[in-house]
Amino acid sequence: MRQVETIGLDLGGTKLATGVVAGKPEAVWSHQVPSKGYSQLEIVDLLAAEANRAHQARPGAVAAGIGVPATVDFDHGHVISTVNLDLEDLPLRDLVAERVGLPVVVDNDGNLAMLGEALYGAARGTRNALLLTAGTGIGGGIWLDGKLYRGATGAGAELGHVVVEIDGHPCQGNCPGRGCVEAMASGTAIGRHGREAAARHPESALGRLAAEGVEIEGPHVTEAARQGDEAALGVVELTGHYLGTALVSLVNVFQPEVVVLGGGVIALGEHLLEPARREVRERALKPMNRTPVVAAELGPAAGMIGAAALAQLAWEGAA
Amino acid sequence: MRQVETIGLDLGGTKLATGVVAGKPEAVWSHQVPSKGYSQLEIVDLLAAEANRAHQARPGAVAAGIGVPATVDFDHGHVISTVNLDLEDLPLRDLVAERVGLPVVVDNDGNLAMLGEALYGAARGTRNALLLTAGTGIGGGIWLDGKLYRGATGAGAELGHVVVEIDGHPCQGNCPGRGCVEAMASGTAIGRHGREAAARHPESALGRLAAEGVEIEGPHVTEAARQGDEAALGVVELTGHYLGTALVSLVNVFQPEVVVLGGGVIALGEHLLEPARREVRERALKPMNRTPVVAAELGPAAGMIGAAALAQLAWEGAA
Repeated sequence: MRQVETIGLDLGGTKLATGVVAGKPEAVWSHQVPSKGYSQLEIVDLLAAEANRAHQARPGAVAAGIGVPATVDFDHGHVISTVNLDLEDLPLRDLVAERVGLPVVVDNDGNLAMLGEALYGAARGTRNALLLTAGTGIGGGIWLDGKLYRGATGAGAELGHVVVEIDGHPCQGNCPGRGCVEAMASGTAIGRHGREAAARHPESALGRLAAEGVEIEGPHVTEAARQGDEAALGVVELTGHYLGTALVSLVNVFQPEVVVLGGGVIALGEHLLEPARREVRERALKPMNRTPVVAAELGPAAGMIGAAALAQLAWEGAA
Repeated sequence: MRQVETIGLDLGGTKLATGVVAGKPEAVWSHQVPSKGYSQLEIVDLLAAEANRAHQARPGAVAAGIGVPATVDFDHGHVISTVNLDLEDLPLRDLVAERVGLPVVVDNDGNLAMLGEALYGAARGTRNALLLTAGTGIGGGIWLDGKLYRGATGAGAELGHVVVEIDGHPCQGNCPGRGCVEAMASGTAIGRHGREAAARHPESALGRLAAEGVEIEGPHVTEAARQGDEAALGVVELTGHYLGTALVSLVNVFQPEVVVLGGGVIALGEHLLEPARREVRERALKPMNRTPVVAAELGPAAGMIGAAALAQLAWEGAA
């Protein structure tokens, strides 16, 4: 790639990360703001403001990419609906482009994390790979034959909405499903499993926190697991079991060269990865049972870097 | 396609269908033999004998395609392993080719049914489609961007091994999984559900059959459902629920233009299709919840026609 600068915006369920990237997996400028609790139009304002902030900081930037945790009509830059934010039926590309004065592309955030990892990270050099990114929700991306696969109109690759338990817990936000891996293994689900574990094991670190009146959330589980609390470690193990079950389905279907796991939940490290890998080893068909399951390399910046990379790809196509 | 004649062989868990096809979804010659209970080498003999029988009947045939219910290394025509037959680590393409004296291609049977339906059947004119074919087991095929997607080395597209119930029934044959849709909604699973329903409802038609000493299998359930037996209809509804749950995962991931259901189980018609469609409507994300779920059009011949079509595609590529 040529060393032009492009702006990447990664809109998550709780924060918006913006960066300017120049053909490398590092931002030359970056900024982050909260994204929770905004209305649809406030989110458009926020995206435009952050893109303009980036453009003012790096006036040479030629285009902007926006990753959203939503199903997208890719060709039209149109947001169809989203699970964890208030976005629905919105011509996001055009709304932001007219306020920023740069070409804008919009894609699902999981697709962009996949693009980042395929160009610069843990899936570098592969032709076929999958990425799941687990935070507030679980997003996904599919890298097939050296490019992103998005489904018939760009709304596919919703790897977080693979069902792992037929009559499992109702899924989040506006997903009408039950037992989706997002409902069972996202950061939100870890919080729920944590509250249940605290109630079952009042003597555990989690149980004592709950007794102090703390509303247990994902980060409490992560912290308690790091300190070796058995109840918290059980929650992480259970989460890996759910996550790995989704991976069994996905490797049987895609036979990817590698599965990359990213997002905040990956802070749990091997406590989470190893039970997930075990499911793949023990339950997937040959030869898919040998699919490597690895941690993302670009860390929390993967989506932002992928958004900037997509902006560059689009700009090159248009140039 | 030019009107050359090619031989298609569709090896199932219980029978081998062979036909000669000339660029149309109809066989100009066909023959069928049982395939159950043979050893690996006997299956190779059977395939070579049937291919030779077809070649003698239609000496103008230029190539043969073989569909197997197995994971396959497509580039090498090598069978890796199979769930419902005794095939493992076998250079099938070369073994059959040397006995037949024609170019041979080997592919997964679900892939070939998908190819048949995409070229001539219910997915005609689409760029992105999925097929599940439910008989003894459940096979699948993936049509992306106007061609078959097979995974990194051809072993993917195992849509029957999408997990629908995390700790569900152990899967069949040499699949090490549990709760795969094949374990819950194949013809074999319908037989199991039927035996359970017969025990719970001794007054039902299924229950009376069981009391007479009949070992209930899938076809008994199909027949009783057709005659309106409530217990059998409940089994079919349950099967549609499992099948539809796998479809929810698959449409969320692929956003196909259509999902085609084939195989013997489709004889259950709307009794099965409607509960499966309901899951997609009620549980998939927008816009994937509107994905059409339709019956295969080529019927039991889809795999054989697809095998012959693949042989023609390969022959054209080589010509």
